[in-house]
Amino acid sequence: MHGSDQSRARDLPHATAEIIARLRERRPRVHCITNAVAQNFTPNVLLAAGAIPSMTIAPEEVAAFVARSDALLVNLGTLDAARREATVIAVERAAEKDIPWLLDPVFIDRSEPRCGFARGLMARRPNAVRLNAAEFRALSGSEAGEEAVSRFASEHRVTIGLTGATDLVADGAQVVRIANGHPLMERVTAMGCAGTALIAACFAVARDPVVAMGAGLLILDIAGEVAAQRARGPGSFAVEILDALHAIDGETIERLARVS
Amino acid sequence: MHGSDQSRARDLPHATAEIIARLRERRPRVHCITNAVAQNFTPNVLLAAGAIPSMTIAPEEVAAFVARSDALLVNLGTLDAARREATVIAVERAAEKDIPWLLDPVFIDRSEPRCGFARGLMARRPNAVRLNAAEFRALSGSEAGEEAVSRFASEHRVTIGLTGATDLVADGAQVVRIANGHPLMERVTAMGCAGTALIAACFAVARDPVVAMGAGLLILDIAGEVAAQRARGPGSFAVEILDALHAIDGETIERLARVS
Amino acid sequence: MHGSDQSRARDLPHATAEIIARLRERRPRVHCITNAVAQNFTPNVLLAAGAIPSMTIAPEEVAAFVARSDALLVNLGTLDAARREATVIAVERAAEKDIPWLLDPVFIDRSEPRCGFARGLMARRPNAVRLNAAEFRALSGSEAGEEAVSRFASEHRVTIGLTGATDLVADGAQVVRIANGHPLMERVTAMGCAGTALIAACFAVARDPVVAMGAGLLILDIAGEVAAQRARGPGSFAVEILDALHAIDGETIERLARVS
Repeated sequence: MHGSDQSRARDLPHATAEIIARLRERRPRVHCITNAVAQNFTPNVLLAAGAIPSMTIAPEEVAAFVARSDALLVNLGTLDAARREATVIAVERAAEKDIPWLLDPVFIDRSEPRCGFARGLMARRPNAVRLNAAEFRALSGSEAGEEAVSRFASEHRVTIGLTGATDLVADGAQVVRIANGHPLMERVTAMGCAGTALIAACFAVARDPVVAMGAGLLILDIAGEVAAQRARGPGSFAVEILDALHAIDGETIERLARVS
Repeated sequence: MHGSDQSRARDLPHATAEIIARLRERRPRVHCITNAVAQNFTPNVLLAAGAIPSMTIAPEEVAAFVARSDALLVNLGTLDAARREATVIAVERAAEKDIPWLLDPVFIDRSEPRCGFARGLMARRPNAVRLNAAEFRALSGSEAGEEAVSRFASEHRVTIGLTGATDLVADGAQVVRIANGHPLMERVTAMGCAGTALIAACFAVARDPVVAMGAGLLILDIAGEVAAQRARGPGSFAVEILDALHAIDGETIERLARVS
Repeated sequence: MHGSDQSRARDLPHATAEIIARLRERRPRVHCITNAVAQNFTPNVLLAAGAIPSMTIAPEEVAAFVARSDALLVNLGTLDAARREATVIAVERAAEKDIPWLLDPVFIDRSEPRCGFARGLMARRPNAVRLNAAEFRALSGSEAGEEAVSRFASEHRVTIGLTGATDLVADGAQVVRIANGHPLMERVTAMGCAGTALIAACFAVARDPVVAMGAGLLILDIAGEVAAQRARGPGSFAVEILDALHAIDGETIERLARVS
């Protein structure tokens, strides 16, 4: 545990309940530059949770969409020339307009050019990065322990969401651990990608980046637990998690959250 | 109410029942140039209703697919250079072959270059345009009332389907209003995009454009009402509407239609 | 019946049961160059069955992904310049690394340039081709009977999986017929495309190409029969087949297989 107290971990479930209410009231616009696989499931996750998605990647249009959005997601899956070009334009416009943007460096451990592009994006200061242990290793050169994740967050002045059996949220000052979720989440493609879009929606309605990251992870993980109770396999699980995101309430979050 | 009588509104449910039968018997081919988000849900809607979809966007292939189709959909979501190029080729081939084509100018209120492209397509005379109130404002410069929609339809000699809480169908001579549908339709991405593809299928098997537009809207809206009875949220709703489209019959349409 | 005995047909159900176990134990990586419509359903089918999908098409990245994969799928749907370029790179890398690759020449009967590209790929020696009767006619110039399919397999030294009411597997020496499946499989887009990805996963864990092809077809067809028992239409069928693929076991295969 980094930092001097656990107040953020203790307060996260209640803060998440408030964020759910704000998502439904304010309906933030989230522009997503994401991969070809996630381009349907991601907006469905955002709509289920109350946000308004837009998805264009075309370099000539993306700046107009970003400028009218409340948050931006940059996901590096199926990265191609158009996506690289759109990302640079989108990130510049987000910086100009002070719109929070999040990086999801999918599979950078599988492709050296993609990893190089992700490192370049770190220099443009995303508000947050969500990634798994293999992607963290590729990005940072270190193993994904709490110390290394905290150090990386501190050095880059970024909030990190490291997902795995237990999710870690770190900003360099504190670490929050989230032990929710379900194994079927690994059996539905684009689940993590859509989750980062949901976190981006939380950044649009929350000031504290550790709370926004933690809330987004907690909402998805607990919706996954609720969905798994009704699902008979990965097909019905993908359907049920959308229904669960639409129905989820603060009481369910506070009852099921396992945060430390 | 424009026009001298309400015969089309009164006859629409029965005409829709006949169109459903023809879709299943003739299985029209619908070629779709659509956005990245809708590229899976759209062909599933068409297949459920009995039509045969094709989806390529490649400029070098699109003319061959259009030439062998019974209707063409042009949807402007996630518009990029390849989609613009393919659209121009496809629309020319449709005109040569006298194949009906429909325009769905998604989000033209969010992107000035996209709106300009949509205006250029209007000059190429689509058979019909389906859009919402914000898109109508962007395209026409007027608020989306019945008068303005009728005038726009008349000036452009096009059939307009304006979707909202109540859908309007206008061809400049008459206005038909459809009060069916369900709020969950707004919570599933690409629902409207897939709906316009279904309307295109109706144009392939109906002569009267007001009837074709009205039938397509009515089939989707009533399938949405049927689906909502079984759904527990937007995930199960998207599944149920495909099942409902596959099962829908003329008796259900005539029983549930609210047309004036 | 070609060939001297029916041992492969007789042994296929048991061999398929073993392949299911190996898919779950080894979790082979399958890289997919596939069409825009299939890019979500395909990885969900692979994940449900136990394999690990990757989906990038970008020419600058695809070689790295193929090199770390256990099988490669090349599907020609929504073929465009990027997909053609990526395919050539991917197939070369697969040959260098001795990774099995499969061709799914979707809709080559609808587009002459696509058919020409497919013929060029045959010269690069895919391990197997899955196609329907219309695509076989376009590729070979012959009607899709058992004789013609066997001759084509023999001439090209390739394993053919011809899908229809009864599926045929032919390698030039033997023909195996699979009579499983369900009509709803035709009403879900990308079902065949995803099926070829599943066959590619089987090639990653089986030595005999006739067994690999037969096993993949049998797993999908029987999952379709199981799914149809619970489905109420094509929407729920697409969900149920993913659940069925996740749950399927050797006992179910051996009980339901109709192979000759």
